[in-house]
Amino acid sequence: MFLRHAWYVAALSSELSEQPLARTILGEHVAMYRDSTGRVVALADTCPHRGYPLSLGRLVDDQLVCGYHGFTFDCDGVCVSVPGQDRIPSKLAVRTYPLVEQGAWVWIWMSREEPDYARLPETPWLIDGEEWSVVTGAAKIDAHVGLLVDNLLDLSHETFLHQGSIGTPEVATTPIEVESDEEAKVVNVYRHMSDVECPPFYANTTGLRGRIDRWQDIEYFAPSFYKLNSRVAPVGQPPLPDGRDDHAFHMKIFYGLTPSTETSVWDFWALSRDFALGDAEVSNFLEKMQANVVQEDVDALNVLQRRANDGQEITEVSIKIDRGGLSARRMLMSLEEAEIARELAKK
Amino acid sequence: MFLRHAWYVAALSSELSEQPLARTILGEHVAMYRDSTGRVVALADTCPHRGYPLSLGRLVDDQLVCGYHGFTFDCDGVCVSVPGQDRIPSKLAVRTYPLVEQGAWVWIWMSREEPDYARLPETPWLIDGEEWSVVTGAAKIDAHVGLLVDNLLDLSHETFLHQGSIGTPEVATTPIEVESDEEAKVVNVYRHMSDVECPPFYANTTGLRGRIDRWQDIEYFAPSFYKLNSRVAPVGQPPLPDGRDDHAFHMKIFYGLTPSTETSVWDFWALSRDFALGDAEVSNFLEKMQANVVQEDVDALNVLQRRANDGQEITEVSIKIDRGGLSARRMLMSLEEAEIARELAKK
Amino acid sequence: MFLRHAWYVAALSSELSEQPLARTILGEHVAMYRDSTGRVVALADTCPHRGYPLSLGRLVDDQLVCGYHGFTFDCDGVCVSVPGQDRIPSKLAVRTYPLVEQGAWVWIWMSREEPDYARLPETPWLIDGEEWSVVTGAAKIDAHVGLLVDNLLDLSHETFLHQGSIGTPEVATTPIEVESDEEAKVVNVYRHMSDVECPPFYANTTGLRGRIDRWQDIEYFAPSFYKLNSRVAPVGQPPLPDGRDDHAFHMKIFYGLTPSTETSVWDFWALSRDFALGDAEVSNFLEKMQANVVQEDVDALNVLQRRANDGQEITEVSIKIDRGGLSARRMLMSLEEAEIARELAKK
Repeated sequence: MFLRHAWYVAALSSELSEQPLARTILGEHVAMYRDSTGRVVALADTCPHRGYPLSLGRLVDDQLVCGYHGFTFDCDGVCVSVPGQDRIPSKLAVRTYPLVEQGAWVWIWMSREEPDYARLPETPWLIDGEEWSVVTGAAKIDAHVGLLVDNLLDLSHETFLHQGSIGTPEVATTPIEVESDEEAKVVNVYRHMSDVECPPFYANTTGLRGRIDRWQDIEYFAPSFYKLNSRVAPVGQPPLPDGRDDHAFHMKIFYGLTPSTETSVWDFWALSRDFALGDAEVSNFLEKMQANVVQEDVDALNVLQRRANDGQEITEVSIKIDRGGLSARRMLMSLEEAEIARELAKK
Repeated sequence: MFLRHAWYVAALSSELSEQPLARTILGEHVAMYRDSTGRVVALADTCPHRGYPLSLGRLVDDQLVCGYHGFTFDCDGVCVSVPGQDRIPSKLAVRTYPLVEQGAWVWIWMSREEPDYARLPETPWLIDGEEWSVVTGAAKIDAHVGLLVDNLLDLSHETFLHQGSIGTPEVATTPIEVESDEEAKVVNVYRHMSDVECPPFYANTTGLRGRIDRWQDIEYFAPSFYKLNSRVAPVGQPPLPDGRDDHAFHMKIFYGLTPSTETSVWDFWALSRDFALGDAEVSNFLEKMQANVVQEDVDALNVLQRRANDGQEITEVSIKIDRGGLSARRMLMSLEEAEIARELAKK
Repeated sequence: MFLRHAWYVAALSSELSEQPLARTILGEHVAMYRDSTGRVVALADTCPHRGYPLSLGRLVDDQLVCGYHGFTFDCDGVCVSVPGQDRIPSKLAVRTYPLVEQGAWVWIWMSREEPDYARLPETPWLIDGEEWSVVTGAAKIDAHVGLLVDNLLDLSHETFLHQGSIGTPEVATTPIEVESDEEAKVVNVYRHMSDVECPPFYANTTGLRGRIDRWQDIEYFAPSFYKLNSRVAPVGQPPLPDGRDDHAFHMKIFYGLTPSTETSVWDFWALSRDFALGDAEVSNFLEKMQANVVQEDVDALNVLQRRANDGQEITEVSIKIDRGGLSARRMLMSLEEAEIARELAKK
C-alpha cells in the first residue's frame, strides 16, 4: 500500500531536460521532462494507444511524440496528433501529475485528489547561493521504504556502517531524546554529543582540529521528507542566548523517501552547508563522501530486503535507540489508516 | 495456449549441422541437427532416462549419444544402445518432429496429428539463386507472439521506431486498405505511397535517386508466416497492363513467427530481392540494416512485455492504422477456438 | 523438507578464519568463524535486533559485532553489548550450532535435538600427513540434493560427462553390484573393471603405463556423506590373501552433500591418496582435474534443475546402472519418514 496523499521528491532538478526521464513512483510509471520555457512536466508514462512508454519518445515543439507509432501529446496530456487520420479519439488524453520545482529538487503529487500545497515542504536551504552551498544526489534501493525510515531514524548505525566517514564511537553511545507530533506528523530525534571525536566528513571541510561538540537533530516529516540538522562546534561553545551561532558549522542533510515499488525506494539526498560557501573542492569532497555513505546504506538495506524475501519469519528486539524509528512506524501506520478511510469515504 | 496445428519456422538452414541445436518451440524442448547425408532431424530434447537434454550430447555415426549416461538414439528416435546391458527397454524411444527444409528456412510441425503438408507455405523466394538474392537471420524476443503480430501488421511504426533506415514520414501518414480472408486465414494490408521520400534501405541498394512510388503489400498467413511485398519505382511508373514491372525494384520481406514460450517468440526474417543479384556488398548492407531494424523491434516489444508483466491493467485505444492488427487478432482467436474444438473432439 | 537429524559438512577447514563466513545450510543462515584460539564457531546469521546478517560484522576480541548497530555476541551466542544502554534484553541471544573440525572438513549438526556424536562420520583419511595426502574443494550446485545423489551413485556417467579425465569406455559397460544396509543407512555399489584403459587422472599420478585393473567401491552414508574407494593396479594383481595391497594405488574420493536450499546444494569434495605422498605437483594436478570434473557435474545438474523448474512433467526410465541410485532414494525416503515421525512425537 502506498500513501498517495503526500508530496514526494520525483527527481533532482538537474535530472530534468528535454530528454524525457522515466521513473516509477508509488508503482506508477511517470515520464518527466522540461519544456523549452524551463517548466517541468510529468505525464503518465504509458501511451493510451498500445501502452508503449512515452518516455522512450522525444520532445518536438514541446510536445511528446510516442516512439512507437507517433501519437503526440502536449504538456497538459492532450493528444494533438495521431498517424494516418485527422480525427483524434477523445479517450486518448494521458494523466498529468502536479510538479513543483524548489531549488535542487522537484516534488510530485501522486494522489488523484487536488494537490494540497499547504503540505509541500519548504526547502529554502536547497537553493544553492549566498547562504547555503548545496550538493545533491539520488540512489535506488531495492528495499521497502520502511527499511529506509528505520535506517534514518536511528543514526547509531553510523558508528558501525559508516565508520571512517561520519561514524565515530560516540554516536552509538550517546543517548537520544525523541519527540513525536501526531498532529503535524513529525518525529524529532535529538542526539547532542559533547567533547567527541570529529569524523573526517567534518574535519576535512570545517578545518576544526581536535574534539568537538556535535549535534544531530532529526526532523522526519512522515511519510516522505527527512531533515537532519547537524551542528559541529569547538567543545563548550553553545549557541549564544540570542540564538546567534556563528562560531559553529551547520549542515542540513535532507532525504526524500520516494517509494518506487512495494520493494524499492528512491533515496534522494542533499547536503546544505553554511560554511566553505561556493568552495568547489569542499563540495566535491562532500558529494563523494556522502555518495559512499548512501551506498553503504543501499547495500545494507538491499541485504535486509533479500532476507525479507526469503519468507522466513522475522522477529525483532527493540531497545532505546529504536524509539525514533518506532515512533515513525506508528505515524506511518496512522497515515495508512487515514488513507484507507479517505478511500472508503469516496465510495 | 499454443496453436499447434500449423507449420512454424524452426531454424535457419544455416543453423543446422552435426552439432545439435537446442530450441524451445511452443513450449517444447527440441533438439535439431543435420545427419551425414544432409537430412535435418528434430527430436524431443529430453533423454527418457533421467531427463538430460539430448542436444548436449553428440552425434556418432548419425546417432545422438546422450552426454550424461550415453543412451543413444537414431534419427527416428529409436533407442539403439544403453550402458551396461544389452536389453533396451521399449519405453526409451523419443518423439520425433516432422521437419521440412525449404531454401533458407527449416519448418517444423508441432502437432501430434499427422502433418498437413497442404498448409506448408510455399517459399520459392527463399532459394538464393538467379531470380532472388536472399539474406536471413533470427532474433529472440522476450514477448508474447501477439505483440510481434501487432508490430508487423501495422507498419506505420516504421516512421518512428525505424527512422533513418526504412521509416519516412509518409509511411505513417498514408492510409491503408485491409482485406481479410477468414477461410484461408490470410490478412492483407495494402499501403501504396506515391511521390515519397526514398529511405536509405532502398536508396543505397537500388540506385534510385529522388522521390519514389513505394508499395507495401502485406500478406499475413496466420498464425506463423508473414510476407511483405515491397515495390519501389520511380514516381509515376506503375506496372504495365500485362503485369510486367521490370522498371521497379521488388523485395519480399519474410517473417517466421515461432512462439518459444508464452512470453517469448523467435523472430525469423529473410529479405529476397530481384535486383543487385549476387552483389555481396548489397547483401551485407541489407543484412546489417535489417538486423538493426529487427533489434529495434526486439527492444520495443521487450519493453511492452515487461510492462505487461507488471500486472497493471492495460487499456488500448485503436485507430484506423490498427485495422490490420485487429483483423489478425480476430483470426488468431478463431484459430484458438478451432484448436480447442479439435482437442475436445479427440476426447 | 530437510533431514536435520544428521551431520553435514559445513565448510572446509581452510575456509574458516576470523573473517566470518556466511553459508545457508538446510535453509538456515549460518555465520561461521574461527576464534583466536583456533576454535570453530557457528551462530545463527541473523541479528535479533533488526535481522542484519551477523556475518557482515567483524570479530573483536573473539566477539562478533553486528555491522549495522553494533549488537555484540560471544562465541556461545550470548549478547554482551548493545549501543546506548547498559541493560541487555534477555531475548537477544542467538542460536549456536555444534561444529566439529576433523582434518580438512568441518561438520555441523543442524537439528535442535542434542547432537548424536555416534553418527559423526570418522574421517581419518582427511588428515593430510604421512599416510594420506589430501586435496579438497567445494562447489555450489543450483539443484536439489537428490540430483547429486543420483549423479554420485551411478558412475557410468563418467564415460560421457567426464571423458578425458576419469571417464573411459569400460566404466559404462562394466556391470555393478549393489548392496544396501537399511539399518546402517549405507548403500554400497561395486564396480570392478579388469584389464581396462587407465584414464589421465591416474596415469599422470601413479606412473602406471598400459592397462590396469580398476575398482570403484562406493559407500554412501545417507543422507550426507559419500566415500568412493578407488583402487588401480597393474592387470592381474589382486590384493594378497592377507589383505596387503602395496602394489596397488589407492585413492578415496569423498563428497559431503549439504543442502543449502530446496534447490541448491553444497558439493564438498576431497581426494585422499596413499601414493606420491606430499608431492605438490601431483596434488596440484589432482586438485585442478577434480575441480574440472566437479564443474562438469555442476553444469549438468544445473541444467537438470532448470528443466525441473520448467514445470513440465518429468518421466524416468531406469535400467540396471540405476540400482544404486534407486536404493539411495528409498533410503532417503525412509529417513524422511523417520524425521516426520520424530517431529510428530515431539508434539
